Amino acid sequence: MIARPDPVVKVGLLGLGTVGSGVVKILNAHRAELEERAGCRLPLHRIADQDLTRPREGLDLKSLPLVPDAATVLDDPAVQIVIELLGGLEPARSFILRAFQSGKHVVTANKALLAHHGAELFDEARRWGVMFGFEAAVAGGIPLIRSIKEGLAANRILSVHGIVNGTSNYILTMMTEEGRDFAEVLKEAQAKGYAEADPTLDIEGLDSAHKLQILATLAFRTSVDLKDIYTEGIRGVTRQDIAYAAELGYRIKLLAIAKASDGRLEIRVHPTMIPASSPLAAVSGVFNAVFITGDAVGDLMFYGRGAGQMPTASAVWSDVLEIARSLAHGVSSHSVELPSIAARPLPLQPMDEIRCPYYLRVMALDRPGVLAQVSGILGKHNISIASLIQKGRAAAEAVPVVMMIHTAREQDMRHALAEIDKLPVVAGKTVSIRVEGGDL
Amino acid sequence: MIARPDPVVKVGLLGLGTVGSGVVKILNAHRAELEERAGCRLPLHRIADQDLTRPREGLDLKSLPLVPDAATVLDDPAVQIVIELLGGLEPARSFILRAFQSGKHVVTANKALLAHHGAELFDEARRWGVMFGFEAAVAGGIPLIRSIKEGLAANRILSVHGIVNGTSNYILTMMTEEGRDFAEVLKEAQAKGYAEADPTLDIEGLDSAHKLQILATLAFRTSVDLKDIYTEGIRGVTRQDIAYAAELGYRIKLLAIAKASDGRLEIRVHPTMIPASSPLAAVSGVFNAVFITGDAVGDLMFYGRGAGQMPTASAVWSDVLEIARSLAHGVSSHSVELPSIAARPLPLQPMDEIRCPYYLRVMALDRPGVLAQVSGILGKHNISIASLIQKGRAAAEAVPVVMMIHTAREQDMRHALAEIDKLPVVAGKTVSIRVEGGDL
Repeated sequence: MIARPDPVVKVGLLGLGTVGSGVVKILNAHRAELEERAGCRLPLHRIADQDLTRPREGLDLKSLPLVPDAATVLDDPAVQIVIELLGGLEPARSFILRAFQSGKHVVTANKALLAHHGAELFDEARRWGVMFGFEAAVAGGIPLIRSIKEGLAANRILSVHGIVNGTSNYILTMMTEEGRDFAEVLKEAQAKGYAEADPTLDIEGLDSAHKLQILATLAFRTSVDLKDIYTEGIRGVTRQDIAYAAELGYRIKLLAIAKASDGRLEIRVHPTMIPASSPLAAVSGVFNAVFITGDAVGDLMFYGRGAGQMPTASAVWSDVLEIARSLAHGVSSHSVELPSIAARPLPLQPMDEIRCPYYLRVMALDRPGVLAQVSGILGKHNISIASLIQKGRAAAEAVPVVMMIHTAREQDMRHALAEIDKLPVVAGKTVSIRVEGGDL
Repeated sequence: MIARPDPVVKVGLLGLGTVGSGVVKILNAHRAELEERAGCRLPLHRIADQDLTRPREGLDLKSLPLVPDAATVLDDPAVQIVIELLGGLEPARSFILRAFQSGKHVVTANKALLAHHGAELFDEARRWGVMFGFEAAVAGGIPLIRSIKEGLAANRILSVHGIVNGTSNYILTMMTEEGRDFAEVLKEAQAKGYAEADPTLDIEGLDSAHKLQILATLAFRTSVDLKDIYTEGIRGVTRQDIAYAAELGYRIKLLAIAKASDGRLEIRVHPTMIPASSPLAAVSGVFNAVFITGDAVGDLMFYGRGAGQMPTASAVWSDVLEIARSLAHGVSSHSVELPSIAARPLPLQPMDEIRCPYYLRVMALDRPGVLAQVSGILGKHNISIASLIQKGRAAAEAVPVVMMIHTAREQDMRHALAEIDKLPVVAGKTVSIRVEGGDL
């Protein structure tokens, strides 16, 4: 009789950057607990990074099995799980595909890669019969992917509303709490390291769109092309509109929204006014939160740190442990279930067809009949005013006329605004912000 | 060659009450999706309930395989998963043990049973090699159990702060928003069906203690006896204290708290003042939320409906699907991992030893030297005042003196209050409310 050896699952790591170092730190700190939970030993067998010498805070590089090239990890038959933390599209994509082809399971935190090539990667993982975990790709340490796939498995998901970009939420929070301008707060956020030197991905909503693509694919079991997600960033949000929103009982947040309505999927990222009493409105600073409505479960919200070394590393380990536990128990690839497209995927609702309430700020010269002209144009386009505040009076300068608009169609609003902005009594472009209310 | 049959996992249900009916409704509405996700057919093979005739809204009883006795379900060798929705300790406990002994997997929503007999049930499930799911027992539809067990598996959990009783939270919310008295709001909540005719379990904090026992067992991998959880309900909370709290920037919530501090576990349920800006403070009405801090992931919060037919049934199905998926893939009992006690479980911190800031309201006669006497007693017990508001002046009647107290030891506070309440210039019992701050 041969004694059954303790199971061992060897792990390889691609990329010893910030998150990669966090992954090593968690293992160093909690190896005994992690191995107990996985039911196997979990040696970090090889770590590939081009930079073998730059010090990593909290790590003793000499004690790590560092190699300079990814191939050494990918070609090592002993490695069963590869953690990909390179970021970017290539070579990350090729490396993951190569790992799949050698029967290796993969865990990634790479949201851009999933948003662009998720469908291909899920198909290939299925084809090669390997597990593929990506809990860390959306909302950092929040166990959101797992919750949608497993916790809400008995629900038809009706809508997802997410604050999924910490940088934008930090900027909007500071603008709201301190009444400051976008440009000033952005500069400060860059100095503090909360915003990148090139903040485009964050503040233009692209990073949010990446995460929304992944969430919507899972939640609605449909395929969404990144370019079909209407995306508008926060650069145009002013402290004036934030202040008017507050006066009306609202907050302005950059929301990633996906909703099933009338058998179609609405999917969009833009600054949004939400009721100040909503739990999403209380999400401040760099925190993320995702509000999900399911047909059985009702409203749920998941809140936490959407980025950062240790929260992201925590999510990476949750996937590694799940895969290792399956391997240790001799299970094949069922345990990390991959997103699949439903028998009847939802067609997309074109942006022109979406319907929502709006906030408008028209800059009008203080002349008789201005309101009649503006409301006339709105009425002609089937748009009706719910409430109106006129701010101040000035003989020469334009004054803001702030309106809350009942639910209207996007295309009608677009046409109406084009006409309003051409009125001689209107000075400058009218500001419009979409409103989400309900139970948020 | 024999064609491999589609796997079939037969499910039995004990109890066709509110949640049981919800379980049937979800299957009726989404059978195709549920079976696809489970990877097997999921016939509801037998349903036991003593009442075979009372109509259940939305269900056609004649189409259901109803039987009058649990034994028919428990003794049927074809049934692989038993859903226990009887509630209460007995016969639920005996039925579950009997199911385990016949190799059946069990899913329950029975929080009282788990709080009283969880350790026995987990041991027995392990002994018989069966899976035991209880996602529905805490925080209804919120996928909290799964998140703690799997999503946060790489974390050492530092603290749990939960609003886990919808009835109490509804009452406190109404008292806060409408400035009304406890008794009046309770009566209204009973009329609306948000509170039971006998509301003791909810408003005395016992239901919260049940849930905290389950959460703490999982989160801290330790064993906690229900009777060791300090439990104080909301009956003593007045609208005056709620108003003073608001003035000081706080809200009063019934919190279930478990914290690892100094190698010990603090575990307690009581009305608590938390900063108004905290995400927990925004949890209104019957909603539940659990705020968890992990060493890697930082702060997380899970928010949703903590009770109700469909949210609870949604959680029941998440467990049934996970078990069925494992069975369909021929996996043994690893997938629903059971709580186990760590190698070094945390000893409990006695209540007398806990330390926190406090809110005090002393009802003092408006005489010279009152403050000197009160602060003298506090000082003698190593308690220092952080801030003080004296409200109004009245010649004859007592006036409230409201104090925020720096972190102090519970026992010191208890002794100081006993002395203060004996002062001739103090009219009536001093109100004290513990404060939790930090990143909540």
